[in-house]
This record gives sequence, structure tokens and C-alpha cells, in this order.
Amino acid sequence: MNFDHSFGVESWRTPPSSGGRVGQNERLFGLRCIVCGAQYPMQDMPAGCPACAARGTPSSVEAVYSALPHRLAASSSGYRWGEWLPYTHGVSLGEGNTPCLGLPRLAQRLGIRQLSAKHEGLNPTGSHKDRMSAQAVTRALAVDAHKVVLASSGNAAVSAAAYSAAAGLPCEVATYRDMPAPFARALDRLGARRVAFDHGLDRWAHVRRQVEEEGAFALTNFSVPAVGSPVFGVEGYRAVALECVAEGCVPDHVIVPTARGDLLWGMYSALRDLLAAGLIERMPRLWAVEPFARLSQVLAGAPAQADFGGSTAQISIAGSTVTLQQQIAVQRSGGGAVVVGDADAARGVAELGAQGLWVELCAGACVGAAAQLCQHGHIAPQDHVLLLLTAKGDRDA
Amino acid sequence: MNFDHSFGVESWRTPPSSGGRVGQNERLFGLRCIVCGAQYPMQDMPAGCPACAARGTPSSVEAVYSALPHRLAASSSGYRWGEWLPYTHGVSLGEGNTPCLGLPRLAQRLGIRQLSAKHEGLNPTGSHKDRMSAQAVTRALAVDAHKVVLASSGNAAVSAAAYSAAAGLPCEVATYRDMPAPFARALDRLGARRVAFDHGLDRWAHVRRQVEEEGAFALTNFSVPAVGSPVFGVEGYRAVALECVAEGCVPDHVIVPTARGDLLWGMYSALRDLLAAGLIERMPRLWAVEPFARLSQVLAGAPAQADFGGSTAQISIAGSTVTLQQQIAVQRSGGGAVVVGDADAARGVAELGAQGLWVELCAGACVGAAAQLCQHGHIAPQDHVLLLLTAKGDRDA
Repeated sequence: MNFDHSFGVESWRTPPSSGGRVGQNERLFGLRCIVCGAQYPMQDMPAGCPACAARGTPSSVEAVYSALPHRLAASSSGYRWGEWLPYTHGVSLGEGNTPCLGLPRLAQRLGIRQLSAKHEGLNPTGSHKDRMSAQAVTRALAVDAHKVVLASSGNAAVSAAAYSAAAGLPCEVATYRDMPAPFARALDRLGARRVAFDHGLDRWAHVRRQVEEEGAFALTNFSVPAVGSPVFGVEGYRAVALECVAEGCVPDHVIVPTARGDLLWGMYSALRDLLAAGLIERMPRLWAVEPFARLSQVLAGAPAQADFGGSTAQISIAGSTVTLQQQIAVQRSGGGAVVVGDADAARGVAELGAQGLWVELCAGACVGAAAQLCQHGHIAPQDHVLLLLTAKGDRDA
Repeated sequence: MNFDHSFGVESWRTPPSSGGRVGQNERLFGLRCIVCGAQYPMQDMPAGCPACAARGTPSSVEAVYSALPHRLAASSSGYRWGEWLPYTHGVSLGEGNTPCLGLPRLAQRLGIRQLSAKHEGLNPTGSHKDRMSAQAVTRALAVDAHKVVLASSGNAAVSAAAYSAAAGLPCEVATYRDMPAPFARALDRLGARRVAFDHGLDRWAHVRRQVEEEGAFALTNFSVPAVGSPVFGVEGYRAVALECVAEGCVPDHVIVPTARGDLLWGMYSALRDLLAAGLIERMPRLWAVEPFARLSQVLAGAPAQADFGGSTAQISIAGSTVTLQQQIAVQRSGGGAVVVGDADAARGVAELGAQGLWVELCAGACVGAAAQLCQHGHIAPQDHVLLLLTAKGDRDA
């Protein structure tokens, strides 16, 4: 299924004569609930699985592919890992292909054999969100959406603004009124419309209205209780794991700053598929880093649908919700949740800065999480640990 | 010639067991003045060619390789294009491999067949300077320097701070007293020492003292009249051209924001070598973008050693000096100089922002330069033009 569109920016990997081709993965044939397994035909399901929602436990759907490649080789045109994603060709600003770096001095400090960091701050708008935006905005084009809408006051907003501009689509962002200035400025420069709210839930209600009444295409969740972001975007995060493994970086543990778990789920689903294909020998344990106990409470027995209040300066992983996708990703991989407060996160930022890496506050929290996991024996001295550095630091206060 | 060092960060492409290996290119055997051709044995010559300096026309030296690869294939370990550079292995934060993007809407607006942009803002610290820092800081390690020093109030300073931190070397930056806050903050986060001055030449004198009296390793020029940055750093820019050509992007024109022409020379020297090796069929024309007439005056007959005053908000290409390396690069490639004022540069930033690319002010000037060159018939409708987007935009005022 291919569509012609007029992109403003094209990946050089798609021949410049192609005129902005949107190409759907031929192996993609439907969606499936990650909790109950119900299957659905191809469609947009921004509120997730209706069967689970009716039971009061809203959950995400994932893409179902008829088959996946048997070897790990980047595609020769379009998205590098397009054969593992919903769209093989579409809007691109050159996202992905971020470096996996070794951190031997920090490894020694933590007392572990090997420490690596995947630096997602090197994406076009400075965060991992570009992986989601590329696939999701391409989906918006494929369904002839006239507008993109999302709720975010941070990296996701900047990323959505950039990819919408590249695709020639208007972008409207529901933000907090006190959105940090560097993010607001980026939205203005990239031509997105800002609509400010005092409360998080009002932002979600606005997105819902835009979707239901005006046919806008949502890039983020607007359901209560929360589900993950819409499936075609979340699948974009699969490339993070594919890139690591293709480079030979197969860690024992992956530490991921987590709000609603889109990145965590994308990595989990790709690693699960790599394991099934025999391309890795065992599942790395995925650990969600959170600024206060949310998922930790759920793993200890609280219902995932509850509201978990708490305040933090780690804005990229703030919020009071837990999703089933993050719970499943850590449970099925044998990982868990680690709470890292703002002071420890800041110490992690300084430690990474001393290695030449300036990252956002919640990415610094990865270091504190690794230290805790070492201290409690979850990480052993002979282990290889991968930190997901979700964004660069210059937009932090 | 290999050395063992304790890096804080290692490229995953160098096996993590390598312990921070510094590897010099075996084919590198000396230096040569780019003006008089005098050859020199391997050494650091931060003031350039002494013979030319004695004649009152200080000029840069370049690396001389006994041979270069006959084909364009990335190296399998260390720096991707290390076989074309002074060092094959060394300090890396994952620089390079930046995307080459097609800009069809802007091409149409300019009335040309094809417009591409190499987005150097996707480097680890957000600018092309990381290409220079990787090679230059590796050189500092190779000669057992105990400290890195440079004069910069912008992208070069941030980049040097990051790579010095990764290498475990102290970094001292001579800045303007009114250095923009985002850059100052980045230096603090990355652990560099700032020393502030009111006048540009005082910064250079400070660097000179540090080099001559304290044995520090200089990353930038400190000579009057100016030469380019030290050779082992400038050679790092060769990778920009190699990456483009390896991707199949061989333009008719390359438009490069230019202060003292390090990037311009690096691209010229690589393209010249690619032409000599038969890997490209003709030399692209290189055009230097400047905020007020400097090189333009030199090309019209003024001596390159003169002082060319002017003020601009395009801080990355400000300054009153012209170097012989930039003059030679545009003349030998059949290009020239284009003056783009701040208002036109800001319009270019907005036009690129509307395509999803937020770049620094002088990178926006590339669009205005392209328009001028089209208008004056230097760029023809059937031509392919490449813009060098030197840095991301978020640090601009």
C-alpha cells in the first residue's frame, strides 16, 4: 500500500525522485491487544483495545506482522529498520542510527564488567521521540489526516512539530501553561500551534475532542486510565533495540527512563522478536526508571489503573499514570522498576557530563538506577548494562 | 603508532576491551603547507607554515598521506573514515554519520532540480565541530598533552569540553565576557574551565601563552594574521565530504557557512582526493557564506591578512579575519564567497524550520546564499545544491 505525498524533507535513502513515498510494510496485517490477545484489522485505535477498556483495564495494541526478517540487516532504502516496522518508507529527518557508547570509567565505578549507553539525544530534535514521530506522522499521511494533535510539554511536542512540518501537516500541541521556555521556543520555530492548559487531564480532553470531533490524528494517549501512545508510533521504538543488537551490543540489563512505557514496550517487543528469530540468545532484563513509586507500587500489588501522585523535576518521566505495557515489558523480561529521585538523577547527569555526555535529568537517573540494582544484587559484577539516554540535556532548567 | 589511554567514553566500534586505544593512520607521514608546498615531518604546527609566516602570509599546513584507499568504504573499527584521517582510533562520542536530507519543496521554491542538506546539528554536541574535536583531542592524547586550550565562545568550545571530558583531559576555554548563556551552561556541565576576555585578540594571546609557557595543546588558531585551526583537527572535516559521496550525494555546489574556513578546507581536501582517486567525476563548487564582506573583499583584491570589521548576530561565523585556506578552497573549486546579512539568515532559519529543521542562524544563511547564487546565474536550474547545516538552532538567542 503506497501513497504519494509532498514531503518538505526526504531521506536521502529514498531516491530523491520518489516524491515523498509512503510505503506500508507488506507483512503488517493487523493489530493485537498486548494483554488479552484479541486481534483487530488494520485501523487506528488510539484508546487501545476496546475489550480490555470495557473490563476497566485499558491496554495497548501492537502491530502483528505475518513474518519478520530472519537476519539483522538494515534496509537499503527508506527507514533503516523498516522491514521490522509498520512503515518502510515515509517522513524522515534522519532519525535513528544513534551511537552505542562504552563507558569504561563509569563501569569501573559501578563495579561491573561493561557499561554502555545508547545516546538518543543525537536524534534530529534531540530525543528518542523522533523514532515515534517518524512512524506516527507517516501513518497520519497514510490515512489522509489533515492535522496532527498531541498532549506534551516536552520532547514529544518538539519532535511532533518537526515531523509534522516535514510532512506538510499542521500540528497542534496541548501543553501545560508553564511549559519550559526552551520547548515553547522550539515549537514556535517549527510552526506548531500551542494550546495551554492548567491540568494534565484537560490536555487529554482537548486531544480527545480534536480526534473525535475534528478528525485530527493523535500522537499521544488521551485515555483515562492511560494506555500507551498510538501503536504506529510506539512500534518505531523497536529500531532502538534492533540497532543495538545489529552493532553487537546485547546487554544483560537495559535501564530505561519511563513515563508511560512507549520506549520500554518498543524495545521489549523487538527483543522478544529477535529472541524468537534466534538472533539473540536470551532476553535482556528491562528496568523502568521512575521519579517516584508508580510502577513499583503496581509491581507490589496496586492496580495499574490507579492514580499515583508525586512531583519531580524529571519532566520527561513525570505524570501520575502507569500503563499495562510498561508492566508487561518489565515482568516478561525479568526486570522491574527502580525509583530514582531528582537529587540522584542530577548526580547521574554530572557523572555523565564528566564523560562528555550532557543528557536530560531523567537520563541521568539511569546511573543512579544502575547503582541501586548493583547494590541490591540484581546486577552482577560480570554483567553488561545498557543505559538508554533518552534526550540531550540543553533544554533542562 | 598506538598508545593506550583511559577514555571515559569509547566508540562501540572499537571493541570495548581495547582500553582506549589511540591509533595513528599508518599512511600519515608528514605535513605540507597548503600555499608554498613546503613539507615538514610529523609535529604540531599550531601557527602553520613558518616559511609563509616569515613572508607575512601565514598559512595552514595539511596532512600528507602516502596513499589513500581506492574505494569508499567505512572502516570496520574505530573512526568510520579513519583511513582518510590522521587517526584511525581515538576519542569518540559517536560523531559523524549525520543525515543527508532532500529538500524538494525548497528546491522548487529556488527553481533548482535538487537541494540537499547535510545536518551537522545531529553530532553529539550539536555541531560540526565534533568532527574536529575527535581528531584533535586524540592528537592531544597521542602527544601526552596534559591540558587542552582553545579560544571560542560557541560551538567549538562546547565540543572541545565534551571531547576533553571523554578523554579525561582538563579543558580551558578563552571566551568573550558576554558569551551567550546556553554555551556557558554547557561548558559548566561538561566541566570545562572558562576564562573570559573583552577582546578577541586577548583570547588568542591567552591561548598562545598557555601553549608556549605551559605546554597546553591548542585546538584553535592564536596567530595574527589568522591561520586555520591546527591541522589534526581540520583534517577531521574530511569525513563530511566522504559521507556525502559514500551516500551517493555528489552535488554541483556546496554552500558552507564560514568563519576561518576549517570546514571548507576539510571538505575541499577530501573532494580533491576523491577526484584524484576517480571516486567523483568533477569537483563540486564550494561557496563560503559570510555575514559581511571579508573573503569577498579578498577575492576582489584585498590582502587576506587585512582586518575586516563588521558586526553580526551569526556568532558562529563572526570575526574579522580571512584565512588562506578558505580562499584556496573556493578558488580551486570554482566557487566563491556570498554575503548574507542577519535578516536574510533569519528568513532562511524560518524556511528550514517550516521543513522541520531548526538550525543556527548562520546555517539559515545557506538558503539566502543559494537564492543569491541562483539569481546571479552561478547556480543553474538543472544543478544539485548541498547546504551545510553547521549546527542545531536551540542555542541561538
